[in-house]
Amino acid sequence: MARPVVGIVGGGQLARMTAPAAQTLDIHLRVMAASADDCAAAVISDVVVGDHDDLVDLMAFAEGCDVVTFDHEHVPPEHLLALQEAGTAVRPGPAALVHAQDKIIMREALSRAGLPCPRWAEVSDADDVALFAEAGRWPVVLKVSRGGYDGRGVWVVESPAEAAEVMASTALKPGARWLVEEKVEFVRELSAQVARSPHGQAVAYPVVESLQVNGICKEVIAPAPGLSPERSARAQRVALDVAAALGVEGMLAVELFDTGQDVLVNELAMRPHNTGHWSIEGADTSQFENHLRAVLDLPLGSPAPRLPCTVMVNVLGGRYDDLHDGFLHVMARDPGVKVHLYGKAVRPGRKVGHVTVLGADPEVLLARARHAADFFEGTIDG
Amino acid sequence: MARPVVGIVGGGQLARMTAPAAQTLDIHLRVMAASADDCAAAVISDVVVGDHDDLVDLMAFAEGCDVVTFDHEHVPPEHLLALQEAGTAVRPGPAALVHAQDKIIMREALSRAGLPCPRWAEVSDADDVALFAEAGRWPVVLKVSRGGYDGRGVWVVESPAEAAEVMASTALKPGARWLVEEKVEFVRELSAQVARSPHGQAVAYPVVESLQVNGICKEVIAPAPGLSPERSARAQRVALDVAAALGVEGMLAVELFDTGQDVLVNELAMRPHNTGHWSIEGADTSQFENHLRAVLDLPLGSPAPRLPCTVMVNVLGGRYDDLHDGFLHVMARDPGVKVHLYGKAVRPGRKVGHVTVLGADPEVLLARARHAADFFEGTIDG
Repeated sequence: MARPVVGIVGGGQLARMTAPAAQTLDIHLRVMAASADDCAAAVISDVVVGDHDDLVDLMAFAEGCDVVTFDHEHVPPEHLLALQEAGTAVRPGPAALVHAQDKIIMREALSRAGLPCPRWAEVSDADDVALFAEAGRWPVVLKVSRGGYDGRGVWVVESPAEAAEVMASTALKPGARWLVEEKVEFVRELSAQVARSPHGQAVAYPVVESLQVNGICKEVIAPAPGLSPERSARAQRVALDVAAALGVEGMLAVELFDTGQDVLVNELAMRPHNTGHWSIEGADTSQFENHLRAVLDLPLGSPAPRLPCTVMVNVLGGRYDDLHDGFLHVMARDPGVKVHLYGKAVRPGRKVGHVTVLGADPEVLLARARHAADFFEGTIDG
Repeated sequence: MARPVVGIVGGGQLARMTAPAAQTLDIHLRVMAASADDCAAAVISDVVVGDHDDLVDLMAFAEGCDVVTFDHEHVPPEHLLALQEAGTAVRPGPAALVHAQDKIIMREALSRAGLPCPRWAEVSDADDVALFAEAGRWPVVLKVSRGGYDGRGVWVVESPAEAAEVMASTALKPGARWLVEEKVEFVRELSAQVARSPHGQAVAYPVVESLQVNGICKEVIAPAPGLSPERSARAQRVALDVAAALGVEGMLAVELFDTGQDVLVNELAMRPHNTGHWSIEGADTSQFENHLRAVLDLPLGSPAPRLPCTVMVNVLGGRYDDLHDGFLHVMARDPGVKVHLYGKAVRPGRKVGHVTVLGADPEVLLARARHAADFFEGTIDG
């Protein structure tokens, strides 16, 4: 084959972090960014500025790409279908991706496939929510089926009045509906990532533990400490089954609740995912490389961990506008910490980078990674 | 500090492989390439095409760079001095770099510092060579002091007549002179890499074993198998002493002969080096990241190996014009092999990529890496 050309719709940090993997395999990366200021645009030569809601822009972007894939789930399903019908390889394809775009379609498909979900129902008003809650108990989790991410579009409501207030004050995006889910009592959150290729090969990464703060992934420990081999195999099996049932091509992240007895599927993402950033240094093949290999239908790389434990902590926008000011302290204090800055303007709570530390003892690694992240965020001084 | 801007003169694979490290730390990389087709130009957004022999081009390139460093040793020392005098931070500086540019100046400095070198002498004709050989024995190694690399500019000569023929048929570049060295009986070649920063911090990488074929690095095993702790410490000490004695800023590779009794310095390179490519996956901090950290005077990263053994094998231009054709076989056969392609046109014997395998047993890793490299080169079929 000639040098492969992979188009990524979206110019955020996931596209940006795909660049090193693409370069290493001499894969040409083309990115469709919403603006020339998108953080991927700074490091990728072939950037097309365009609107992912505009089919004409998408068609022009896809011209010459061997495959088109995504940094986010925001491209309208009908545009993806049109691209596919025009002969573009779109991976994951629209029939799969819709499950990461619409939580109701996802819940229906997983329930049909017998995969473990929280109890859920589509609702149209607060009365429906109350009816659902009566069968269980308050609080419940109210969600919009489309358009939410990083905790947006999700509300924990305690009463019919609260549900009514949320529903009255939220404008649904076109095609979006309401659903409600039981609030799962979990001991922790897990993430099971798999890569799956069009010819059906799949590999499962070690199951990781993730800590979410205000709906945003803050910490990941790989593999999840103390997870029994049975529970780990169960989580990987669920993720592989989701990938096969939905026909995923590329990386799939299945976010799971660990209830202590079993796992339940919380969310899906069909792209590299925050809970897989540890794999850049921590696995034989990073999620970014395996996403490229999967969408190009190349044999997948080993997802095996290199060291007994890898910890990743996100850096969120905090006190400092210029994160480079943190280099001297962070690098001098801990020569082993791996710093990743995304080149994004710092805004409070925004994901602007992450740090990774590799070793053996999760507690030690967490303390080291937290110190570095806290310093970049400005919540500690040294 | 604001986002640092590092300028690299030279657009080859060393500049190219610096891009991921720069991106990760949100360091802006600017490359001066001899042509827009240089392999670094394909992956770096900020490329200036210019002539490294032209001071005007160099001055324009340096404008706005926080520091200027190098992918090769070909910039004339007087231009580097002029840049430095104009206020540009040049690292390594011309006073250091000249030792990697001129083998006579290097031998003089190392001999003065008491560092272990082969017996050597400057020569101007075949009679001088014969005189040198009489004090030892034939064959001897005849070298041009400037302009040689990857085995070019080096001849093993067996007799005065052969020396005379080489000297008569070789046009010396401006400033170049002849030197002769004893042909060292070595049991293997080693490479000791260190990073050194302007403020004098230095870190030493594990000493590696390298196999050179026709003057080109072909295989590297990190760390060097069976190297005694004493010999390893000696090699690291020599490299640290070279870096301090010559005032190196950035990465330094000291290629060494392991004579079985001691080590002798063969060559120096003041930049990331082929014998350090294993560090991309194999060390806590790659040589490319530490080169950036060093030239920016940031604290250096840990050079510790992540796994007991890492093996790198170069891919040289061979039977296939399109290396991507090798992906299916190489990736399917060995999901753990890390493939690096440089995006260069394939020409026989040219360095066009490398493969890296990590694990424990050097023999097993060598066999895996050789298989992948041989397949890309077309010397085996599967």
